[in-house]
Amino acid sequence: MRSVTVGILGLGNVGAGTVRLLHERRAAIEARLGAVIEVRRICVRDPGRRRAVDVAPELITADPRALIADPMIDVVVELIGGVEPACSYILAALRAGKHVVTANKAVLAERGAEIFAAAAAHGRAVYFEGSVAGGIPVLRSLREGLASDRIEAVAGIVNGTSNFILDAMTRSGADFAEALRGAQAAGYAEADPTLDVSGGDAAHKLALLAMVAWGVRVHPTAIAVEGITGVSAQDIRAAGELGYLIKSLAIAHDSAAGPCLRVHPTLVPRGHVLAGVTGAYNAVLVESRALGRSLYYGRGAGMMPTAVAVVSDILELARDLVAGVAPPVAAAVRDLPPPRADGGPTTFELLEHENYLCVQVPNLPGVLGRVATCLGRHGVSISRMVQDRPGRGPVPMIMLTESVSERAMQAALGELASSPDLAAPATRIRVLPASLV
Amino acid sequence: MRSVTVGILGLGNVGAGTVRLLHERRAAIEARLGAVIEVRRICVRDPGRRRAVDVAPELITADPRALIADPMIDVVVELIGGVEPACSYILAALRAGKHVVTANKAVLAERGAEIFAAAAAHGRAVYFEGSVAGGIPVLRSLREGLASDRIEAVAGIVNGTSNFILDAMTRSGADFAEALRGAQAAGYAEADPTLDVSGGDAAHKLALLAMVAWGVRVHPTAIAVEGITGVSAQDIRAAGELGYLIKSLAIAHDSAAGPCLRVHPTLVPRGHVLAGVTGAYNAVLVESRALGRSLYYGRGAGMMPTAVAVVSDILELARDLVAGVAPPVAAAVRDLPPPRADGGPTTFELLEHENYLCVQVPNLPGVLGRVATCLGRHGVSISRMVQDRPGRGPVPMIMLTESVSERAMQAALGELASSPDLAAPATRIRVLPASLV
Repeated sequence: MRSVTVGILGLGNVGAGTVRLLHERRAAIEARLGAVIEVRRICVRDPGRRRAVDVAPELITADPRALIADPMIDVVVELIGGVEPACSYILAALRAGKHVVTANKAVLAERGAEIFAAAAAHGRAVYFEGSVAGGIPVLRSLREGLASDRIEAVAGIVNGTSNFILDAMTRSGADFAEALRGAQAAGYAEADPTLDVSGGDAAHKLALLAMVAWGVRVHPTAIAVEGITGVSAQDIRAAGELGYLIKSLAIAHDSAAGPCLRVHPTLVPRGHVLAGVTGAYNAVLVESRALGRSLYYGRGAGMMPTAVAVVSDILELARDLVAGVAPPVAAAVRDLPPPRADGGPTTFELLEHENYLCVQVPNLPGVLGRVATCLGRHGVSISRMVQDRPGRGPVPMIMLTESVSERAMQAALGELASSPDLAAPATRIRVLPASLV
Repeated sequence: MRSVTVGILGLGNVGAGTVRLLHERRAAIEARLGAVIEVRRICVRDPGRRRAVDVAPELITADPRALIADPMIDVVVELIGGVEPACSYILAALRAGKHVVTANKAVLAERGAEIFAAAAAHGRAVYFEGSVAGGIPVLRSLREGLASDRIEAVAGIVNGTSNFILDAMTRSGADFAEALRGAQAAGYAEADPTLDVSGGDAAHKLALLAMVAWGVRVHPTAIAVEGITGVSAQDIRAAGELGYLIKSLAIAHDSAAGPCLRVHPTLVPRGHVLAGVTGAYNAVLVESRALGRSLYYGRGAGMMPTAVAVVSDILELARDLVAGVAPPVAAAVRDLPPPRADGGPTTFELLEHENYLCVQVPNLPGVLGRVATCLGRHGVSISRMVQDRPGRGPVPMIMLTESVSERAMQAALGELASSPDLAAPATRIRVLPASLV
């Protein structure tokens, strides 16, 4: 039987899951593929460490260069994570004529241009299903299932940590810090959770979704990113009273000026298909011209779910290698210019949506009028208002605005920030745009 | 530029959608594929009829045999529907060396053995993504995204008509007949809705899901099928009071004795991911060993959604044809024996679940005791009971049973049916098994 030979860089969680899956499902894979997937070498930093999977000691090496240079290896699987040294290893593997599978969104988001250029130059493929939404086959669905369709928008819950924390806050009424500690204790948040709760990780994944959906590489500074650290227990309670849940969404939509990408906490109507995505689950909603709305839901992280995606990429490469065909190199991707390259407003600033607004103001006559007048000067109208627990001293005043441009809203927030009426900075959370409801 | 040549049998809704999509997305398809998809001939019954899409008259023919025999055609796309003459055309196309794309679940469910044997004998591929859940790439996800995973169960809302009717009954309190008329008026149910509301259509699709998930062909008589015609407005109201929605589900799970398939109305807990699938949407929930729970959701029928799936199959074949490789012929499928071939209970009869039970009984002392005693004789325990609007004359008594085997429940229902206490036959609706909650 033919064999396809794999070298794996990194034997952490996902690496161990990949080795385990290839081993446990060996018979099924061989029956389906008509070939053997052989793990020839695994590179680890510390060969002495105990692993989550049993591996024959002779497979283990501490020398990534030797693995990459091994002429018997067809596919290099990069599961180290982070930008360096992962990027150097991927580039070296492509130069050595290997195809590459990776689950590393950071390296693709930050060094993708270089990596895909090297892949094209050497006629090799880079597959990365595991880098977005773990084991959910959403990139494959966009690329193949919806191959002939025109993608209009994607909106995803793609950071399990943020979703777990917001979900815990919603269920228990806890504040952010308390929910974060709970997520850390349950293993759903890292000791340093910054990349997750800041929206940075979701932005990396969104850039990859946009690349597959539209064949564009978006300049990192063109993605508006807002984390969940500013969402309070009171915001979640007030949103609930207005009929919404707060979710951290990564949203991209196509426009005449090119795709517009943003990550931010979002008010999602209760009953919406994304509102039901709880805990550490991920989901990506896709709006496309012919198919309409579709949704892909499942575990977005973890050892075995991500391994399923990594092995699906290995098998896709293996099918072509067994057939003696060159696997398809990534389709041409064009780079979008950085925002405001032409000095005008960005697509994001022109975007229109409703907004949730919470301001702490003294319960005195005239204050509401001054706040509303300030908003009105920028074209921001209030559609609903709730005053939370009125009394003496500053009280939270909660508003929902009519749909208004992001630019107008930012200008209004800027003026409000300098108002002597406000006891604390206003909290603004965007509402899911009508086209995605 | 290379071209891949297609002949289409049938220019109804899905045929017209396919032609339109291939035309409208021509540039995008060529850029991605590096080849042209050329529609060379379209066979219709009545060439004079007006169509939902503009087609050059010289493409139209009324002679399916000439289309199939055309040596320039690489792929025959069967979009006639029904078992015959679709089956004969598919077999003729395979014998003539064509690859086949179809969206016809009926012909595959009833004549699949013959069709796949012919495909294997002639080394040709039969792709059928459009036959299950319209444009949702669920077969592709099972086959490729989850290629290395072990599928444990699938549970789908795969008949849009049934889901639309149950949803309308739930929202408006209407009874079945009234909701059916509404669905017919809205174009969501055929004039003769039998195949949809009887569960037959869902059973066809479930058989195809099982074939892709486990490589087995299930004997049609081995699928337990129950339609939604027996579900009353009162059942929906009572289920709602107990915290459930009633959905028509197609469920299959793997077991030591092979996959067990069934289609029936099911009580789904409110808040469950399948409970949120409303209207004519479809969704398939997959439980697999490594990935865990995943869900694929979208429009399960209609002109453009199904066309997206058909074109995705054409493109997958085209990629291989352009590369000069033989597309993969379906993996070996084994036929499961008919149920009770060995005389013992079927996997379905051994299945355990809770049950909703509604009996109409006179409001007299002793009746409840006799019903409960009868159930108890068969090992059926009642966990909750609601008496709906007590008064004189027969009143509905609504019960939820503890988890019990299907065989025991059927025996209890058989004895109840002959009880003089019952004013009408009991209604029993199964609760979603705990493993899928």
